[in-house]
Amino acid sequence: MKKLLILVFLLVPFFTQAQSQVQPYLSLEDAIRISDAAQVKSEAEGWNMVIVVLDAGGHMISLRKMDGVQIGSVDVALAKAKSSVYFKRPTKVFEDMMKGEGGARIATLPNAVAIEGGLPIFKDGIIVGAIGISGATSAQDGIVAAAGLEAY
Amino acid sequence: MKKLLILVFLLVPFFTQAQSQVQPYLSLEDAIRISDAAQVKSEAEGWNMVIVVLDAGGHMISLRKMDGVQIGSVDVALAKAKSSVYFKRPTKVFEDMMKGEGGARIATLPNAVAIEGGLPIFKDGIIVGAIGISGATSAQDGIVAAAGLEAY
Amino acid sequence: MKKLLILVFLLVPFFTQAQSQVQPYLSLEDAIRISDAAQVKSEAEGWNMVIVVLDAGGHMISLRKMDGVQIGSVDVALAKAKSSVYFKRPTKVFEDMMKGEGGARIATLPNAVAIEGGLPIFKDGIIVGAIGISGATSAQDGIVAAAGLEAY
Amino acid sequence: MKKLLILVFLLVPFFTQAQSQVQPYLSLEDAIRISDAAQVKSEAEGWNMVIVVLDAGGHMISLRKMDGVQIGSVDVALAKAKSSVYFKRPTKVFEDMMKGEGGARIATLPNAVAIEGGLPIFKDGIIVGAIGISGATSAQDGIVAAAGLEAY
Repeated sequence: MKKLLILVFLLVPFFTQAQSQVQPYLSLEDAIRISDAAQVKSEAEGWNMVIVVLDAGGHMISLRKMDGVQIGSVDVALAKAKSSVYFKRPTKVFEDMMKGEGGARIATLPNAVAIEGGLPIFKDGIIVGAIGISGATSAQDGIVAAAGLEAY
Repeated sequence: MKKLLILVFLLVPFFTQAQSQVQPYLSLEDAIRISDAAQVKSEAEGWNMVIVVLDAGGHMISLRKMDGVQIGSVDVALAKAKSSVYFKRPTKVFEDMMKGEGGARIATLPNAVAIEGGLPIFKDGIIVGAIGISGATSAQDGIVAAAGLEAY
Repeated sequence: MKKLLILVFLLVPFFTQAQSQVQPYLSLEDAIRISDAAQVKSEAEGWNMVIVVLDAGGHMISLRKMDGVQIGSVDVALAKAKSSVYFKRPTKVFEDMMKGEGGARIATLPNAVAIEGGLPIFKDGIIVGAIGISGATSAQDGIVAAAGLEAY
Repeated sequence: MKKLLILVFLLVPFFTQAQSQVQPYLSLEDAIRISDAAQVKSEAEGWNMVIVVLDAGGHMISLRKMDGVQIGSVDVALAKAKSSVYFKRPTKVFEDMMKGEGGARIATLPNAVAIEGGLPIFKDGIIVGAIGISGATSAQDGIVAAAGLEAY
């Protein structure tokens, strides 16, 4: 029993140190679950979408393009997701900023996309990736992105 | 009645011609089936892979990155698939060509990738897309690409 | 002896002219001093920043990314500094210009960034480089850029 | 004592789960320590270098360019580090592969750099980033990269 106690005290700093230099990440399983939820919502609404999930470095974990979607939506969904993970915020935030005085400055911000449909994904306050949706109106893209995120 | 019969005969070549102006294409369902087969083979062998399926225009229909794969494999799998659909041939063909005298010229060929793991996908002799695999050795990438293609 | 004296007088204007063909430049030591000052200010304010110093050709001398900053800030800090050295003016000048009528035209100006946080660095009236800051609000980015510049 | 035992059992799955979805990362402090060691080695040898440290997503944490280095070395050091983190291997591996029959195929591999001077950085077997060095001969670049890595 005493040995166990010692073990616990020995383990505590180990986990503490480990935790101070580790961060959560998205698995393929997470990305598939998020994408499935987004696709279910798309189909329920009768919208065809490109659905992208990126990791915290902005690299693709998963992409799927539903039949009949304009090919331009592949790059758009990617860019929305990239913007969300690069700036840790929904692309809708940039869309709203562009409505104000001098808002066009956002167009000079590298990697910023100012069209709804990109959402960052956080785990315990740490960014782990993003979802990007394109294919319908930007408001509809945003609804599907939110439906995907809810499944995380 | 006779007039109608004549009309039908006049219309037949019209429909025939119309049909000669269509081409087969890959659906998302096809791409998922191909990708699932590739992933099953990867998991059976204990290899982690990036699995990409492109359409006949070289645009992504589906991508998935298994956990732990080097991030460089995302671009590599994409490039292999793109090379296969752009040149209607396996990337292995270019790899073999590079072994011959002056083979390094292939490195100057736009969009050519000379590393096994990309396969074109044909339907009735018409190119409909390609599969690209990266994550293990190029020979192993090729095995997984073939396993995916078999499911089409 | 007399001949040598004449030679010296002939050479003097040559050396003078040669010196009129040099320009000041930023050393790594300068860049580190500027970056350290910017980082001290960032930490004092509790802001996490990307701090970039470029040379007169727009090439990086120094970059550092404090922990937890959004990855998008790397490209933004670089772009702000590049804009400052390419146009010999603070990015805030473009930001202000965009507020006026037709100001959105700045978004079509190659390499212009219209968001505060980039400052050119001058030595004796000659441009020697720029500092670019990103990570907090653009006003805060500007404060940190100014703190860095002060150390030059 | 019993309570502690229960606590331990309650904590075990927590840490296990947490560990299965977290990964280590490089801090700015790590990157500075690695870069300092590389710079000390460079100066001891009388070589001027560009020293880059990237994170696991291939994004810059730190860059410094010593005085007098050719500006081309900035992109070279970046590309070497990117290649190392994208493919989880030293760029020397690609350099050696290119010497064999058909080795020129590596020139068709996206993001691969086949010149010594890039080294991946691992923590507990997980890739956390890379160091890239350029400025002298590739063998000398490799020596400095190794000296940097040793300080991690």
